[in-house]
Amino acid sequence: MATSSSSYGIEQLQKGCYYEWMSVQAKHIVDLKEALMSHRSKEDHKLEELVGKIVNDFQKYTEKRSELSRRSCSSYFTPSWNSPLENGLLWMGGCRPSSFIRVIYSLCGSQAETQLSQYLLKIDENVEVNHGGSMSDLNASQLAKINDLHIKVIEKEDKITKKSANLQENVADMPIAIAAYATDLVNGDVVVEDALDKYEEGMAVLMVEADKLRFETLRKIVDVVTPVQAAEFLLAGKRLHISLHEWGRVREEQRFGCVRTDAAAATGGAGTEKSKRSSLLM
Amino acid sequence: MATSSSSYGIEQLQKGCYYEWMSVQAKHIVDLKEALMSHRSKEDHKLEELVGKIVNDFQKYTEKRSELSRRSCSSYFTPSWNSPLENGLLWMGGCRPSSFIRVIYSLCGSQAETQLSQYLLKIDENVEVNHGGSMSDLNASQLAKINDLHIKVIEKEDKITKKSANLQENVADMPIAIAAYATDLVNGDVVVEDALDKYEEGMAVLMVEADKLRFETLRKIVDVVTPVQAAEFLLAGKRLHISLHEWGRVREEQRFGCVRTDAAAATGGAGTEKSKRSSLLM
Repeated sequence: MATSSSSYGIEQLQKGCYYEWMSVQAKHIVDLKEALMSHRSKEDHKLEELVGKIVNDFQKYTEKRSELSRRSCSSYFTPSWNSPLENGLLWMGGCRPSSFIRVIYSLCGSQAETQLSQYLLKIDENVEVNHGGSMSDLNASQLAKINDLHIKVIEKEDKITKKSANLQENVADMPIAIAAYATDLVNGDVVVEDALDKYEEGMAVLMVEADKLRFETLRKIVDVVTPVQAAEFLLAGKRLHISLHEWGRVREEQRFGCVRTDAAAATGGAGTEKSKRSSLLM
Repeated sequence: MATSSSSYGIEQLQKGCYYEWMSVQAKHIVDLKEALMSHRSKEDHKLEELVGKIVNDFQKYTEKRSELSRRSCSSYFTPSWNSPLENGLLWMGGCRPSSFIRVIYSLCGSQAETQLSQYLLKIDENVEVNHGGSMSDLNASQLAKINDLHIKVIEKEDKITKKSANLQENVADMPIAIAAYATDLVNGDVVVEDALDKYEEGMAVLMVEADKLRFETLRKIVDVVTPVQAAEFLLAGKRLHISLHEWGRVREEQRFGCVRTDAAAATGGAGTEKSKRSSLLM
């Protein structure tokens, strides 16, 4: 196990890395919105560039997490910077990669609904139709690829979940269980410390594996869809992440009457993205 | 969602319920040790009675948790009263029921090792042999039953894990994802609040289901083994639980230089069971 002072430093670095990422994501949201609003059909390369940069930023973030998880990994599984709601939603220290695909299905469904109601409006009142998004234009071949990806991602998630279950079960095995049984003293000895270190190292390896799956899923989705669809998907995913962080904080505040000042400061409290961005980028 | 004041009360009640259970377990440990040390072969009924009482106490604890989880469940998935190590080990707000069976295998293995080394000692030096436990005397029929139970419990765990994965994925679906996408405001609206309440209610149902599986597994193990073996198994399980709570706290303290006073007070810090019991029962 690492020494006290350096481990304390590591937890601070992990927290700093997270808030830096939240601030980068707030900037991504603004950039994506601007790019989507000013997008003209022949300027796909601009969107493509932005999408590529964002996917790249995510990879850099996962690389930093991987580095920082090596010496102390437990805080990634129930981070102190998250609300209980968000921590309850965590899978291997982050979101489920399969939820990326649910975001696509969700956008598809909602945009199809909007199109349908606008089509009916047009029939009735002859109003202008605004499609409101391009995710409902996913074609059959794209949908089939996304569906295949969904199945494969769920399979890979299940494998990682299974490995983590095995690691958890191992803690009830020798030498940990026997050390606990054999002595009245609950002071852990060297054997126990080593076994717990080994457990934490195993969990760190799984988190890195899960981060790779998150990144790969993101990359594959972006490969299947058009640049406009990719930008809409990334915008939705990032807004969902930031909203859940904020909703969780507000729910906790309403329930327990306390504000976690660090979390509130970093996301700028409940407010518009503009005000949030300004405080995030401070 | 419940009102602020009552929800705050609920979290305090959940914490109180946990510490009460830890104190009851410390008493169980003392009772089990005393019963095992003074046990004579014809007094199985005394041990049987104690084991029955302990299994019953666990059921009462799960019933209280079920009641307390109805209005606010998130805190059970990453309790503030646990160390990051313990929270990383949690499955559905508690230990994996399959780990009960790993404790049995672990006791078997360790006791068989002790017997073997003592047998060799006896050959060499003609010393008195003390078996050190009766779990290594599990017969073939008992082992087959325990093995069957292990397989069934893992299957049931996997089903609950799958249900929780689905609930987590649903959060990336309408209306939550769409509400996050559709507006610049991260203030959750009524639709989002309702959807998040529904998610938390779903998780509460799963925790109760997991608690039932934990209880059923415990009960079935006790049915398969002899009263002495049951007492040894319960003693090992409870010591493991209390030790992990304590080891996690000490590791956190060593890493971050902070003592969580509530946790330290409730388990009496690292010390003998006797000193721990006295502070636990205060």
